[in-house]
Amino acid sequence: MDQRLRRNLDRALNPAVVAVIGDKRQSGYMWLRSMQTFSGHVYSVQVNPDEAAGIAELGVRNFASVREIPEPVDYAVCAVPRHVAPRVLVDCIASGVAGIGMFTSGFAETGEELGIRLQDEVVLLARDAGIALIGPNCMGLYNPRLGVRFSQDQPAGAGGRVALVSQSGTHALNVSLMAAANGILLSKAVSVGNAVVLDLPDYLDYFLDDPETDVIAIYVEGPRDGRRFAEALRRAAARKPVVVWKGGLTPAGQRATMSHTASLAASPELFRGLLRQANAISVNSVDELLDVLQLLVRCKPGTGARLGLMAMTGGQSVVITDAFERAGLEVPTLTDRSYTELSEFFNIVGGSYRNPLDMGGTIRDSSENLDRLLHILDADTHVDGIVMEISALFQARRWVREPAALDALVTQLKAHQQQSAKPFLAVLHPSFAEAEVVTARPRVQAAGIAALPSFDRAALALRRVTDRARRAAGMLPLDSATP
Amino acid sequence: MDQRLRRNLDRALNPAVVAVIGDKRQSGYMWLRSMQTFSGHVYSVQVNPDEAAGIAELGVRNFASVREIPEPVDYAVCAVPRHVAPRVLVDCIASGVAGIGMFTSGFAETGEELGIRLQDEVVLLARDAGIALIGPNCMGLYNPRLGVRFSQDQPAGAGGRVALVSQSGTHALNVSLMAAANGILLSKAVSVGNAVVLDLPDYLDYFLDDPETDVIAIYVEGPRDGRRFAEALRRAAARKPVVVWKGGLTPAGQRATMSHTASLAASPELFRGLLRQANAISVNSVDELLDVLQLLVRCKPGTGARLGLMAMTGGQSVVITDAFERAGLEVPTLTDRSYTELSEFFNIVGGSYRNPLDMGGTIRDSSENLDRLLHILDADTHVDGIVMEISALFQARRWVREPAALDALVTQLKAHQQQSAKPFLAVLHPSFAEAEVVTARPRVQAAGIAALPSFDRAALALRRVTDRARRAAGMLPLDSATP
Repeated sequence: MDQRLRRNLDRALNPAVVAVIGDKRQSGYMWLRSMQTFSGHVYSVQVNPDEAAGIAELGVRNFASVREIPEPVDYAVCAVPRHVAPRVLVDCIASGVAGIGMFTSGFAETGEELGIRLQDEVVLLARDAGIALIGPNCMGLYNPRLGVRFSQDQPAGAGGRVALVSQSGTHALNVSLMAAANGILLSKAVSVGNAVVLDLPDYLDYFLDDPETDVIAIYVEGPRDGRRFAEALRRAAARKPVVVWKGGLTPAGQRATMSHTASLAASPELFRGLLRQANAISVNSVDELLDVLQLLVRCKPGTGARLGLMAMTGGQSVVITDAFERAGLEVPTLTDRSYTELSEFFNIVGGSYRNPLDMGGTIRDSSENLDRLLHILDADTHVDGIVMEISALFQARRWVREPAALDALVTQLKAHQQQSAKPFLAVLHPSFAEAEVVTARPRVQAAGIAALPSFDRAALALRRVTDRARRAAGMLPLDSATP
Repeated sequence: MDQRLRRNLDRALNPAVVAVIGDKRQSGYMWLRSMQTFSGHVYSVQVNPDEAAGIAELGVRNFASVREIPEPVDYAVCAVPRHVAPRVLVDCIASGVAGIGMFTSGFAETGEELGIRLQDEVVLLARDAGIALIGPNCMGLYNPRLGVRFSQDQPAGAGGRVALVSQSGTHALNVSLMAAANGILLSKAVSVGNAVVLDLPDYLDYFLDDPETDVIAIYVEGPRDGRRFAEALRRAAARKPVVVWKGGLTPAGQRATMSHTASLAASPELFRGLLRQANAISVNSVDELLDVLQLLVRCKPGTGARLGLMAMTGGQSVVITDAFERAGLEVPTLTDRSYTELSEFFNIVGGSYRNPLDMGGTIRDSSENLDRLLHILDADTHVDGIVMEISALFQARRWVREPAALDALVTQLKAHQQQSAKPFLAVLHPSFAEAEVVTARPRVQAAGIAALPSFDRAALALRRVTDRARRAAGMLPLDSATP
């Protein structure tokens, strides 16, 4: 990416002035409404006089051309019909717009001659001018901190540390919303669409250097240039954790990507090899992506496989162990010293006493016992990380009745996490009390504690971030058939 | 199981009179309160005079001994300390109690000499008398239709068609509650505990013949007698679908089962072979169990692998395809006839047009279009089953605002399901609108439509029930590395 293009993309991603071109009542003024949270100035460009009243109602000044806007525009959203798009682009270039998110579709992705010709025209114009063209056929940019959005459902006002690059508009939106629902805010997100000027490697390079971004998440169907993508991925993943969700890793899935983004992907095996070589984390679904992001953002990184597990009952002790072992992690016996310390207060009769710790009765009695358990596992030299079930069968409902009970637990866990060097994560199973857990979970996550919805999902995510940390430290990944 | 024992178990599982022995204020009268929904007569047995007032407050008549109860007792819950248990058992036998659920723990599972001796005593007494001893160290019986419960959280008043047998009290409770949360009611459930008199094979044999039971679900850590278990499993699975969740299938998980139920399980490989031979469906978690139960209860059974998929966007079309292919199912192209019919109304530009059908725009326009899509897939000879994403990004919130919109969709899907011979299932992803989906899902499920929470979970469950149906029909299971 040349310096001019990078500078323009940077302006577009951190704008002071935004223009929305071609929004209309029929679509509910979705773009203008999305931009209502923007901290800078928003202008509308719409030539249809029938739309003037609706735009004025939104409190936005409207112009007949982007050229008439009285300030330099950093980012323009283009929502005009495809045959008008080249003309709009010419205007944007002429008036010095830095970047344009082209929502307009109907280009090469249709396979039609007209669409292909129009796309060629747009590409030539944009390349020549060095304007940061995002898309076309995309949702454009999201900057939560500045309130630049592509959906009214997206949160605004605060930003996070995860950048998202998506070859699907649905997934760009869905991931941004699901991340927010799990308390993970994004630094920025880009829906890349047909990616004709700025492609995945360009965004990767940008976020590699973005000081607001610690972790990069990607949904990709097929990079246009496999070699460039591989190189950019390697560069990025060497400095920041990169999580890659590849769509179309099965034969029929690949066929579906051709209808969707016209991606002619490399073979699944080649792509998997590329991810492995780059030490990117590979995930298969939005749920897996979210789980990994939670761990990357909230857990201290670790390279060890040996876990101290805490479950609420004997039955859960068995299945939590199965889940973590199945994912290639280990559930070792503790040190003799730990068992000696446990024997001073831990209920032995009828309960598990090795690892997992079947702690139901013990911690119901006092929070002091929980502190002792956490302290013992933290000091135990056989244990590299700690996983705690906190979705006890009977607790979720109590948390709704007595919020202070959950607050106290969260405070305690947060204190443990702060003073311990070992990764710590909680499993908060929706179980039957789904509504209650949906209410309780954000309160755990808001304290910076990773709270995953099942043993299996927690185990798989932990395996993945552990393997990444191991490779990054020059170690071999863990052995296992599963991930 | 001899006839006397079977008759007694049948009386205990379908009681007219229940006795609760040893319940007390300290435990919140959990047993007496659980039995408040019982349609028959409940009596209390408690010798401690301090408990008399509390029991009277619950409206329950109390006696000093089970022998004093003025009616024949079908099922007694025994919640006395372990050293009293043999004397209580003697009383129950003397007064003709048919079955006893022994909640009391502290027997052989402790590994202590006293516990082992007491258990031996109880076993001898029970075997000699032919009383149906459930447990000890268990939650006993659940009959939702009759309101016999072991937790106040369990629903009562109506029964379903799924029997549950669990070697863990936690999982017995959790599965019964999560099943209810997904609209699946149980016919009966048994928490088997130490299973010293009645063991897993006995319950399997019972439910095989139970006219109220169509499907059997089991959580097992280790059967006491592997050969008997294998034989009973084969008998049961040949007549009814049997779903087996095995705890302790990993080395450390197996170690945990020893602390929990003192199970000395066969090797994981042996156990998997046993399940395969019996054509039981194997699952690894409570979530997987629930997903499979939904399909068994709600979908027409099918042996075909070829699916017609309906997704709401291009991005979802790609990932739904990956999910089903990854699970070993197929996403074929449709017949020419289907494409001709689709071309009459289906939006082609920018949308997928093969399979999956990217139906977002099309069905937003009219419900008539949805009918046409379902009809085309139902008639298509390349398609064995239909999967539809109904958790569109923008719909869940609308359903909460406008319940009629969801009702109309559900009515339409139900009509399709009734007239179609092909399995149909819906995917209702919690996505970011988790609270809304948690509200909407039961309304879909109440119409008898399987609604699963992710593409991957739906795919894995469908693969499993399809393989079961194939084996039952003398066909080979589908090829795949995954399940």
